[in-house]
Amino acid sequence: MASSLLSTPSRTLAPAPAPAGLRRRAPAQVHLPRGCPAPRRSRALRVRASVAIEKETPESEPPPTFLREDGRGAGSGSVRERFEAMIRRVQGEVCAALEEADGSGARFVEDVWSRPGGGGGISRVLEDGRIFEKAGVNVSVVYGVMPPDAYRAAKGEAGKNGAAEAQKAGPVPFFAAGISSVLHPKNPFAPTLHFNYRYFETDAPKDAPGAPRQWWFGGGTDLTPSYIIEEDVKHFHSVQKQACDKFDPSFHPRFKKWCDDYFYIKHRNERRGLGGIFFDDLNDYDQEMLLNFATECADSVLPAYVPIIERRKDTPFTEEHKAWQQLRRGRYVEFNLVYDRGTTFGLKTGGRIESILVSLPLTARWQYDHKPEEGTEEWKLLDACINPKDWI
Amino acid sequence: MASSLLSTPSRTLAPAPAPAGLRRRAPAQVHLPRGCPAPRRSRALRVRASVAIEKETPESEPPPTFLREDGRGAGSGSVRERFEAMIRRVQGEVCAALEEADGSGARFVEDVWSRPGGGGGISRVLEDGRIFEKAGVNVSVVYGVMPPDAYRAAKGEAGKNGAAEAQKAGPVPFFAAGISSVLHPKNPFAPTLHFNYRYFETDAPKDAPGAPRQWWFGGGTDLTPSYIIEEDVKHFHSVQKQACDKFDPSFHPRFKKWCDDYFYIKHRNERRGLGGIFFDDLNDYDQEMLLNFATECADSVLPAYVPIIERRKDTPFTEEHKAWQQLRRGRYVEFNLVYDRGTTFGLKTGGRIESILVSLPLTARWQYDHKPEEGTEEWKLLDACINPKDWI
Repeated sequence: MASSLLSTPSRTLAPAPAPAGLRRRAPAQVHLPRGCPAPRRSRALRVRASVAIEKETPESEPPPTFLREDGRGAGSGSVRERFEAMIRRVQGEVCAALEEADGSGARFVEDVWSRPGGGGGISRVLEDGRIFEKAGVNVSVVYGVMPPDAYRAAKGEAGKNGAAEAQKAGPVPFFAAGISSVLHPKNPFAPTLHFNYRYFETDAPKDAPGAPRQWWFGGGTDLTPSYIIEEDVKHFHSVQKQACDKFDPSFHPRFKKWCDDYFYIKHRNERRGLGGIFFDDLNDYDQEMLLNFATECADSVLPAYVPIIERRKDTPFTEEHKAWQQLRRGRYVEFNLVYDRGTTFGLKTGGRIESILVSLPLTARWQYDHKPEEGTEEWKLLDACINPKDWI
Repeated sequence: MASSLLSTPSRTLAPAPAPAGLRRRAPAQVHLPRGCPAPRRSRALRVRASVAIEKETPESEPPPTFLREDGRGAGSGSVRERFEAMIRRVQGEVCAALEEADGSGARFVEDVWSRPGGGGGISRVLEDGRIFEKAGVNVSVVYGVMPPDAYRAAKGEAGKNGAAEAQKAGPVPFFAAGISSVLHPKNPFAPTLHFNYRYFETDAPKDAPGAPRQWWFGGGTDLTPSYIIEEDVKHFHSVQKQACDKFDPSFHPRFKKWCDDYFYIKHRNERRGLGGIFFDDLNDYDQEMLLNFATECADSVLPAYVPIIERRKDTPFTEEHKAWQQLRRGRYVEFNLVYDRGTTFGLKTGGRIESILVSLPLTARWQYDHKPEEGTEEWKLLDACINPKDWI
C-alpha cells in the first residue's frame, strides 16, 4: 500500500550494539510518517515485502530539499517539489503554533536525516510541555523500489501493456513524501489529534521507459477525545467538512466513513476515537486538484485543533478523569500496535523504531474488565466509539 | 500451535451492545491461558485458523471438574484429569500465597465460566493491592476441533495411514488445559513474573477411530525485572534449573535458550526480560515423566518468586526508578501486543479480550528515544536484555 511504503522502509536491522553512554539523540535517524492505508481498496498496492530503501544518516541541518536532482525533483515545479514544500511548511507552522499554545517555553527537539541517493526527513518531538504530554510532527521523503507485482497491482485494469513491460523490466522505482503527527495533551478534556498526508509516485523502470507512471494521495485528520465536548467535536468535524466541500461534495461523507472504518479496534468493537476524515490511493481526480485538496486538509489542522486546545488546556480535572484518559490511551496503544498498518509493517521490517513509536502516548493504562456506568460521561464516549455518529 | 489453540479459541465476535450500566463483572466470561508457542518448531501445528469452540456462559461456582464424562475425562485417572487437578491446585496455592504476601487484605476477584459441551475456566485477578499493581492467574479447559491439515502436521512422519484416515474423516477433536499467569508488582525493584503450563491432546475423529492420537506439553516461567539484583536473578534461575535437572540434564540449557529466543522484541533487538525456561510441543519423552515435569515446574513458581517479592516489596525507590519501570512495562506491552502468539491470535479471532489482555500491566510509558547512560543500573538491565546471560 502506498502508505506502508511511505511509512515503513525496509532496511536491514543491524545487530544492535550494547547501549553506549548518554545518547539522547541517536546517531542514525529515520523519521517517517506513520501511514494509514485503507482497509479494503481494490487498487491498493500489495507491496508489503521487498521494499528496498537505503540506510539513513543523521544530518546537522535540514537541507533546502530532500529531492533528487533528476528532472522530476528540485526546481522542476513538479508535484513532488510542491508537495515537499507544502509538508515542510506545514510542519514548521504546526510546531510553531503548538509551541506558542504551550506557552511554557518548551520546544520541539529536531532530528534530521538523509539517504545517500536522495530522500530524508525531519522529526520534531516535544515531550512534557505545559499542555502536551507528547507531540510528534514528522516529515519524510523516500526513494525506493517496489517489486513489479506491486506495480502491476497499482496499474489495475488500465495499461496492461505498460504493466507487462514493467513486469519484464523488474523492480519499479517509487517516490513517497509525507507529513505525520500525533499530539497527546495532558488535560483529559483536551483531545488527542492525529494527522497524516502523503503523496506517492512510481517511475517508469529504467529498462521500460514506456511503462505508465502512477501517482496517488493519501491522508486524514482524526480526533481522539477522552470526553465528548460537543462544541469541540462539532467544530473539528465542521472544519474537515469545509475543507472537503471546497473540492467535491462527495468527499466529506466518503472520507468521514472511511475514517470510522479504518480506526477500528476490532477486538474491542470500538473506534479509537471520534473520527474525522481518511482517504488512501486517491488518484481518480485531477492531480492538481488533489494536491490542492491535501494542502487544504493539512492547512486545516491548526484551525480545527488549536481552538479546542486553547479552550480545554486548563480545564480542572480529577484523578478519575485522568485515569479514564489513561485507559483510552491504552486503546490508542492497542490500535497502533495491533492494527495500524504503517506501524505493524514498520516494526516487522526494521523501520526506525523511535520514529514509528513516537505516536504512542507517554503513559497508558489497562484495568481488568473496566466498564463505565451507563449514562456517565465515560459511557457516552465509549458509546460514540462503538456507534459512530454524524456530528454535524 | 498447541498453545494458540489452547489460548485463543475462535468464536464469533458478537456485535457488542452499547455499554449497559455498571457491570464490573461481564456476563459472559472466557478466561484462557495466554500461550507461548515456540518460534521455530518443525512439529508445531499450523492450526491458527478455523478452531471451533462453543461460546461460554458464566457460572456462579467452580464445578468439581471441567472435563467431559467421556471415558477420558473425570474419574478416569487420565492425564487430562490429573493435569486439570494440578493446574487448579496450583492456581489456588499461587493466589493464596500472593494474597498472604500482599498482606493488605486485597483478594483475587474470581470469574468462572463453562461451555455447554464441556470445558470452562476460572480467572482470578487482583488489582491495586499493597505489593501487586496487577496480578492475574487463569486456568482453562477447552474442547474444540481443529482442521485435518493441522492434525496431519501434528503427526509428523509417523503414522501416515492414521493421518490419511483423519484427513478423510474431517475436523479433529482436541482437548487443551492450562494455567497462565502474569504478576506485576508495584515496586520497581520487584520483578514481574509470567508462567504458563499447558497440556494438549487430539482425539481420533469419530469416523476414523483408528487414527492415532497426539498429546504434548508446553509452558515456561520467566522473570522480567526493571533492575538487576543478581541475588534475585540467580535464585530464580537456580530454581528453574533444579526443577529441570530432576528430569533430564538437557532440559535446562535447552529450555533456557528457548525462553531467550521466544521472548524477543525483534524491533528493539531486546528480550522482554531476563528469561527463565520455555518449551512447547514437548512429547518426545514419557508422558508420565512430562506430566511430572510440568507439575514440578508449576510447583516451582512460588519458591522461585515469593522470596524475591518478600525481599523487594518495600525497597525505597525514586520517581526515576518508577519511570524506568514504566518504560520497561511499555516493552512488556509491545511484546504482548506485537509478538505473543496467543495474544495476537486471540485478538484477531475474537477471544475474550479481558482475559487475553489481563497480562498487560496496569500502567506503562513510552518516551521518545530514551537511552540510559552507560554504566547505570538501567543500562545494565537493557544490556542483559540485549545480550542474554548465563546467570548460574
